[in-house]
Amino acid sequence: MHEGRNLTLHTDKYEINMMYAHWVQGTWKEKAVFEAYFRKLPFGNGFAVAAGLERIVEYIRTLRFGDEEIAFLREQPENYKEEFLEELRRFRFTGDLYIVPEGTLVFPNEPLIRVEATVFEGMLIETAMLNFMNFQTLIATKAARVKQAAEGDTLLEFGTRRAQEADAAIWGSRAAYIAGFHATSNMRAGMLFGIPVSGTHAHSWVQGHDSEEDAFREYAEALPDQVTLLVDTYDTLRTGVPNAIRTAKMLQERGKRLNAIRLDSGDLAYLSIRARAMLDEAGLHDVKIVASNDLDENIIFSLKAQGAKIDVWGVGTQLITAADQPALGGVYKLVAREKDGRMEPVIKISGNPEKVSNPGIKEVYRIINRKTGKAESGYLALQEEEDVRRGERIRIFDPIHPYISKYIKDFEAVPLLKPVFVKGELVYSLPSLTEIQQYHEQQLKLFWPEYLRRLNPEVFRVTLSQKAWQLKADLIHQHQAEDQA
Amino acid sequence: MHEGRNLTLHTDKYEINMMYAHWVQGTWKEKAVFEAYFRKLPFGNGFAVAAGLERIVEYIRTLRFGDEEIAFLREQPENYKEEFLEELRRFRFTGDLYIVPEGTLVFPNEPLIRVEATVFEGMLIETAMLNFMNFQTLIATKAARVKQAAEGDTLLEFGTRRAQEADAAIWGSRAAYIAGFHATSNMRAGMLFGIPVSGTHAHSWVQGHDSEEDAFREYAEALPDQVTLLVDTYDTLRTGVPNAIRTAKMLQERGKRLNAIRLDSGDLAYLSIRARAMLDEAGLHDVKIVASNDLDENIIFSLKAQGAKIDVWGVGTQLITAADQPALGGVYKLVAREKDGRMEPVIKISGNPEKVSNPGIKEVYRIINRKTGKAESGYLALQEEEDVRRGERIRIFDPIHPYISKYIKDFEAVPLLKPVFVKGELVYSLPSLTEIQQYHEQQLKLFWPEYLRRLNPEVFRVTLSQKAWQLKADLIHQHQAEDQA
Repeated sequence: MHEGRNLTLHTDKYEINMMYAHWVQGTWKEKAVFEAYFRKLPFGNGFAVAAGLERIVEYIRTLRFGDEEIAFLREQPENYKEEFLEELRRFRFTGDLYIVPEGTLVFPNEPLIRVEATVFEGMLIETAMLNFMNFQTLIATKAARVKQAAEGDTLLEFGTRRAQEADAAIWGSRAAYIAGFHATSNMRAGMLFGIPVSGTHAHSWVQGHDSEEDAFREYAEALPDQVTLLVDTYDTLRTGVPNAIRTAKMLQERGKRLNAIRLDSGDLAYLSIRARAMLDEAGLHDVKIVASNDLDENIIFSLKAQGAKIDVWGVGTQLITAADQPALGGVYKLVAREKDGRMEPVIKISGNPEKVSNPGIKEVYRIINRKTGKAESGYLALQEEEDVRRGERIRIFDPIHPYISKYIKDFEAVPLLKPVFVKGELVYSLPSLTEIQQYHEQQLKLFWPEYLRRLNPEVFRVTLSQKAWQLKADLIHQHQAEDQA
Repeated sequence: MHEGRNLTLHTDKYEINMMYAHWVQGTWKEKAVFEAYFRKLPFGNGFAVAAGLERIVEYIRTLRFGDEEIAFLREQPENYKEEFLEELRRFRFTGDLYIVPEGTLVFPNEPLIRVEATVFEGMLIETAMLNFMNFQTLIATKAARVKQAAEGDTLLEFGTRRAQEADAAIWGSRAAYIAGFHATSNMRAGMLFGIPVSGTHAHSWVQGHDSEEDAFREYAEALPDQVTLLVDTYDTLRTGVPNAIRTAKMLQERGKRLNAIRLDSGDLAYLSIRARAMLDEAGLHDVKIVASNDLDENIIFSLKAQGAKIDVWGVGTQLITAADQPALGGVYKLVAREKDGRMEPVIKISGNPEKVSNPGIKEVYRIINRKTGKAESGYLALQEEEDVRRGERIRIFDPIHPYISKYIKDFEAVPLLKPVFVKGELVYSLPSLTEIQQYHEQQLKLFWPEYLRRLNPEVFRVTLSQKAWQLKADLIHQHQAEDQA
């Protein structure tokens, strides 16, 4: 999807300043490897659902400094040299980019993106890639929670008016679809991504007519094949449902049928049970009930537990903003850099132990037990380690409490990071959205239900290989020795 | 700012379906009046800061159904008739649009937008306008809270990587600037809106060098006029600040100066106090301290209360997502419709009393006491009411508890809604961002500090005129009588 905006300056100024400083220094073409990952799962969930790859592909493909961008850079108080701006004009991404496919279940500290490029390129793209990955992964994860609560019910994404601006509306709606939503209300998301689009009518339709009955009848006459009637403009049970039933009868006489009624206020358990009884009594067993009104996974779960007769859930604000935790804290860290012609691992130390980075160029594996077919752990090994790829016995241990460890064999180690760009060329064939949705469903089946539980799930471990762990320990030690010196 | 995307289908499907049903019915050219407002202030704040006007202007000006939009509509299961699609091809907004200027302090139930147009037009634009107004007003309001906590300190918007996608990053950064932020890190926001852009360097800059001292020196050599050094990559007080001081001395020898150091982890109160002492001891009194790391208004307030020596605050995630309440629940309601050639007020009833709409076409006034120069209340009067405009005595009363009332005179009634489009023509001259920022500052001075307090503020009342209140009471009564019939 190419949309015509130039997002090349969708980046923080410090990226440009560091690029400039590297250029001044003459080190800008040195190779660097960056990895992007998050440290903590959102919503207390047991997993996250990776998303953002497709958006990143379009961003990288169209990365160019145009006239407007160069003119703006020329005005900056940093007084960038003209030769630098000329270099930017020639800029193309020429590196390698590895990304976890959309729909994959992912866990803290697993790199979702690995960049192998010049330090110049790696810096420019940090901000935008984090922005895209953080938001889309967040919403796909929230949607997976809603999906689980709704069991097999139909789910509609209804959040555009409360989304955090236009991009969030469409990319959030796409992320929700990846995690199993069935449709969105946003027409543009439908147009750009092929997501089915669903819509009923607003209260204003009813207010705009002399009576609710007139309003329903005229709506049904205009759109006889797609009729869902909103029944709560005045009084749901006293007028809304009876008027909807009259409309349904009218449609039946014309060989059509009422698709559904929609409840948008009041107690949705009570109203849906009463409305269901009224519809059934009128012989309208196949007329569905759609509910909306600030729903989230907890309210859906609770309404279903009380026997609410709701077939279709319209989920808006809470999903599209991930209201209970509206940001995923993904970070982007330098893990290796070129020095004297070879790649050298680097670390970021921090007073907060969980913020110390994992140095070295790593592969991310999902260790699948061949007997059960289920995921056993996440495993981060250095790129050069081959035993895991050959399926040899590996030791899995908790990096914080190394005494918790076990050996596993008879496993398959599935690498999660896929080559998307190699030497700047797109080498990845983007799957269709339906394929992504199906892949996500298969991903869920890889995990024991204990890891997928919405509340207080069992922790799925991501462990470092012995070598990766040792490298980290050595680098920490080395920095501490230098600090004391 | 024209960005090349067609946002015409940035709307919910139900808008298109209602437009279609009106078109089928032949009522699509009937006039309708819609008002957009929110019911509840976010964050427990005492006011909100209106924003979104400029974005809406560009949206309305470029509203067109192009080939791609029409082709997509043609595929929909609703089977819209070709003549309807032809009508959409000719679509232009021809109505009147009144909007509250950006930077204005606004309160619950005050219409921020009033649309007087055909029902067809009024429906199409609902979703996008709410989306823009809700998000930008939310972030401007959050930024005003941060601004208040920071007192006179410099504020930088740093949130792009955690924003909810690309639009949120730039429009959120603009909203923060309206409320008094000084700069953003987002280059594109700087380019598109003229916001000053600020940036330092990342941990990766330091990691990418053999030592922190080398990294600092080389950065300072490359950008000698804009040096802020991030001092927490390894150990803030043991290596970071001492290395920064060495770099400052080096700059001094060259007739330059170190602008600031930045703290991004650890206890910001303790570290800033210690770092300040170290800088002062080295004679570097004018080197500023920048702090970042998940800051919000409460943390800033608390750090300042503890004597933290921080001059500049970089605020990211918490601001750009309005993390403690990431959506403003703005709604868009039909308040009058054409019937038999004249405009008739309409109401939306609800089981929740606060959700009953205020019927009739209304003006929004800020009642300013001429003696004090301070705002006395908000006042919603029907469009035809003239006494308030003439500054005659009016009665202000609480619509829920009408016995709480007072008469006021000697006031100026300032209408808040400004004509932006009249008969489809743009009649509003967009102020510069600096003018908006200044206007917002003046707005704050209109209010007693009790209303502006961040925690548990006094409620600023918005009252209905006697006539508007009576109209509402009559319409409720009328609907109840019909329901019982």
